[in-house]
Amino acid sequence: MTRSASVAQLAPFSLAVLTSAGADEASAEAATWAMLHASLHGVDSHGIRLLPFYADCLRNGIAKPRPHVTVTYPRRAVALVDADDGLGHIATYRAMDEACAIARDCGIGMASVINSTHFGAAGAYTLAAADAGFIGFVCCNSGAFVVPHGGAKPIHGTSPISLSAPNPGGDPFLLDMATSSVPWNKVLRYRTESIELPEGVAVDGSGAFVTDPTKAMALAPVGGADFGYKGAGLAGLTEVLGGILTGMRLSSDQDGLALGDTKVGHFVMAIDPTLFMTLEAFGLGVQTYIDRFKAQPGTYAAGGPEWERRRKREADGIPLPDGLHAELADAAAKAGVTPGF
Amino acid sequence: MTRSASVAQLAPFSLAVLTSAGADEASAEAATWAMLHASLHGVDSHGIRLLPFYADCLRNGIAKPRPHVTVTYPRRAVALVDADDGLGHIATYRAMDEACAIARDCGIGMASVINSTHFGAAGAYTLAAADAGFIGFVCCNSGAFVVPHGGAKPIHGTSPISLSAPNPGGDPFLLDMATSSVPWNKVLRYRTESIELPEGVAVDGSGAFVTDPTKAMALAPVGGADFGYKGAGLAGLTEVLGGILTGMRLSSDQDGLALGDTKVGHFVMAIDPTLFMTLEAFGLGVQTYIDRFKAQPGTYAAGGPEWERRRKREADGIPLPDGLHAELADAAAKAGVTPGF
Repeated sequence: MTRSASVAQLAPFSLAVLTSAGADEASAEAATWAMLHASLHGVDSHGIRLLPFYADCLRNGIAKPRPHVTVTYPRRAVALVDADDGLGHIATYRAMDEACAIARDCGIGMASVINSTHFGAAGAYTLAAADAGFIGFVCCNSGAFVVPHGGAKPIHGTSPISLSAPNPGGDPFLLDMATSSVPWNKVLRYRTESIELPEGVAVDGSGAFVTDPTKAMALAPVGGADFGYKGAGLAGLTEVLGGILTGMRLSSDQDGLALGDTKVGHFVMAIDPTLFMTLEAFGLGVQTYIDRFKAQPGTYAAGGPEWERRRKREADGIPLPDGLHAELADAAAKAGVTPGF
Repeated sequence: MTRSASVAQLAPFSLAVLTSAGADEASAEAATWAMLHASLHGVDSHGIRLLPFYADCLRNGIAKPRPHVTVTYPRRAVALVDADDGLGHIATYRAMDEACAIARDCGIGMASVINSTHFGAAGAYTLAAADAGFIGFVCCNSGAFVVPHGGAKPIHGTSPISLSAPNPGGDPFLLDMATSSVPWNKVLRYRTESIELPEGVAVDGSGAFVTDPTKAMALAPVGGADFGYKGAGLAGLTEVLGGILTGMRLSSDQDGLALGDTKVGHFVMAIDPTLFMTLEAFGLGVQTYIDRFKAQPGTYAAGGPEWERRRKREADGIPLPDGLHAELADAAAKAGVTPGF
């Protein structure tokens, strides 16, 4: 039987591990809530499994444990959030707060994050906007792991795009997608478990598509063998908004260490959905859209399967398979903390 | 040998046909430039082949020939452009002008278009922004032709997403993609020519993927059989920003007539790339990104193949295959205009 743990057990544990690694309270809280967002929604690649990694980042200098996050306002609808080389979460939550505050005033607000590091699941920040009554949009580039369409060497990261829209009467719309078909840790897991990859998601060193995970050297953009130029183009959008606009690094200039990139930029935006109607009327539009899927069982609006998983995990706890449990136990030992699960 | 015609031949011809159908000068010019943008970049599905269709829209009441486009400013960074049920092009060019003007002042600017109709290629408007020194973003939903991932009945349109970024020293970045893998007119063309469709792009009436174009009843979202939820999620983004936010129709509430949708909303946005650096420095970033692809022959940044086609077509003219030439000749006859090609 797989172990599990509740948010009430994992949150104080995560805070203790990050604090022991030097994090200030605000950094530890932001990282914890971003990881638990992902764990609750079933996005396990960005869930509590990243806790040991973030603790190591704090210890080995990849992320500053006590950053001085600063905000300036170059124009009336734009904030510039300098993450001061800390963990990406605290700066990105702050950026979304700023974008929402600007959107309340100006209708739309943008916040660029500079000097940041890995921020986990982009959906954590857009959902925070939706919970506050705003449409949230986030994207960023990330260390190059994904070949261009038809290419053999990575140019793009798995560079995520996320949009969430509020729905006071039901589940918010929540799109949170990588611009590759699968994450790299899926390739690693399929190697361990000797499972074939789907067609069109990974390539060998020559750029040929492979389904044998032991031969996979890089990921391919969403769209696969025929339409990968679309996924690559979306990754390009994240380079423009997350990398070039902010003056931060292109994916292909980042460290290439898995997730351990520094001097990362993020693009954060919020829109006030009450520009042209009440929030309730907007939410009704979102719900009407979501309801269209219910007439076709097995289909979902973006975020649908994640909300189902969230309800299950809120009830039953977040599953901790043996490997993950052991990694968290190691992180606990390193931090001198006793896990309560 | 395929006939061809230059922009200098097609532009006055298009203006004459649209004017003869009742269009005012501004509407005819905007539609003409949007079509020629597409024809030049090789996006023939949205090129001059749409001229007879737009002329018919003006004659049969789908689009008002002499609309009174109005602009209001509900908040300081947002414009609301009412297309007055005219052709989508004139209102969307105006919206991008407004978004750029706001972005110059506020850093980011948004313009929602309401009461619009088909606007052609989204890239026409984002490239106009890039040509003016701004990052342009456009998306909209469109009449339902695309099933949700795993579904059998269309919920989404081919709903496009476009972003362009200026590059004073070279080609702008230009992403302009449908959120389906292929457009419906490709299915129709493959039927005529008895060509098999690629895997994962179209479904029959039961939602099963088919490659026989005569069995295709609807399109599938980009990502295909395994990852179509990503394409569907992106289409959802266009529903939120183009449809729900503006109070216009969801794709599944639109007329379903191919392209002849009314009460359509568009989402238009511009960002000033000189927020954090000079335009030249930003362009250098775009060029550095584009240059990364040159090291891998056959790979392109978004827009790369289109710029190659544009240069060829600027030199050799826009190809007019027999079928298209005959359609334009019919439109000319209906309008009492003599084509100069």
